[in-house]
Amino acid sequence: MSSQRRAVVLLSGGLDSAVCASIARHEGLALYALTVDYGQRHRAELDAATNIAGAVHVERHLVLPVDLTRWGGSALTGSEPVPTDRTAQQIGSDIPITYVPARNTIFLALAMGWAETLGTGDIYIGAHSLDYSGYPDCRPEYFSAFEQLATLATKAGVEESSRWRIHAPLLRMMKTEIVQRGAELCVPFALTRSCYQPSKSGAACGRCDACRIRLRAFDAAGLTDPVTYETNTVAVR
Amino acid sequence: MSSQRRAVVLLSGGLDSAVCASIARHEGLALYALTVDYGQRHRAELDAATNIAGAVHVERHLVLPVDLTRWGGSALTGSEPVPTDRTAQQIGSDIPITYVPARNTIFLALAMGWAETLGTGDIYIGAHSLDYSGYPDCRPEYFSAFEQLATLATKAGVEESSRWRIHAPLLRMMKTEIVQRGAELCVPFALTRSCYQPSKSGAACGRCDACRIRLRAFDAAGLTDPVTYETNTVAVR
Repeated sequence: MSSQRRAVVLLSGGLDSAVCASIARHEGLALYALTVDYGQRHRAELDAATNIAGAVHVERHLVLPVDLTRWGGSALTGSEPVPTDRTAQQIGSDIPITYVPARNTIFLALAMGWAETLGTGDIYIGAHSLDYSGYPDCRPEYFSAFEQLATLATKAGVEESSRWRIHAPLLRMMKTEIVQRGAELCVPFALTRSCYQPSKSGAACGRCDACRIRLRAFDAAGLTDPVTYETNTVAVR
Repeated sequence: MSSQRRAVVLLSGGLDSAVCASIARHEGLALYALTVDYGQRHRAELDAATNIAGAVHVERHLVLPVDLTRWGGSALTGSEPVPTDRTAQQIGSDIPITYVPARNTIFLALAMGWAETLGTGDIYIGAHSLDYSGYPDCRPEYFSAFEQLATLATKAGVEESSRWRIHAPLLRMMKTEIVQRGAELCVPFALTRSCYQPSKSGAACGRCDACRIRLRAFDAAGLTDPVTYETNTVAVR
């Protein structure tokens, strides 16, 4: 393990970060997975992240509590309801209320702290093009700006002993391609959780943006999503 | 209050952030003070921050736990001892082991999340020139890079409804000037805590970098530091 190159990977428990982690693992990296428990209403993500971390054989998995509900500002951390009636045209056309202020910057800053301690400048994040059209902190230029910031921010940057690289291997993929790549890498899709508001039994709602995007991607890839959906969601597929 | 301009101010409980908050308050801003409980060994800082927040009349004070001891990497968050024998020449000549990887980036990212929720693009941080010579994330170009990142990262940046400004009013001051400015603004110095390793009774050690810098500054300003020091520290003044 000592000679293996290390990377910190942000692992949310969703499908994208699971595929991202699998890609990094496939590249031969020793992975240090960071999951941020930010008070997200979709708590099932956290258990999913732990299961995925085991399946992807990470060196270490940390679940770090950072309570972003203290100031809210998002349907994922506050009391506003998650929208369940958005059309394919609406999804990706504006910044949705599920946007969490500064989320990716907070996640990347934390990953940077751990990475510097581990002696690596490599961070993997599962952001992708659909996020990019809705969430500002998923744009390619955002990640370039973060790399520059990281170089100025750290001992590693000052000593020029390493370079910071924010890897977002899914960035220019459509969701269907992500599902296809995940299938090639044998990502355990059944362990992943995408729904913003699963039922108490853990079934996905099938109606929030995250479910709609996921279901369409599996459908287009000609695959069956192995997670359980509430029975009334078949119509929206 | 509704028409008053808002700002998030990072408040550590130390002298610098207390002066920084007083400057922002003096500029007429409604302050939202954020203190990060990152597991620092100098826990007295946290109570000090609460006391200072009250004295500066902030609108709201949040103490947010983010446990950076999970990965360590610093004498302030790990088991390495805090150095107590560094000369004036050594302090500021290299990156000290009290550097906490990514600390300012984590703090600013959190402040950015709260600020965006509050509808403001103004963040105050008490970084200054002495930090600048030792800690990479206290350099002027670092703060400029963060402003650029914030614009790309947020809804505010996308909608161009506001501009991000990271205010570091102490950045080019020497510590003595900070003490002098604090005295002008009647900053309650007695409430501030700087020592990296205070005794159980709360007395400052007088020997760590933070104490040495503080004592020299009060001395040069011709003022008496009102906090309590261990009795054996008189010699190092």
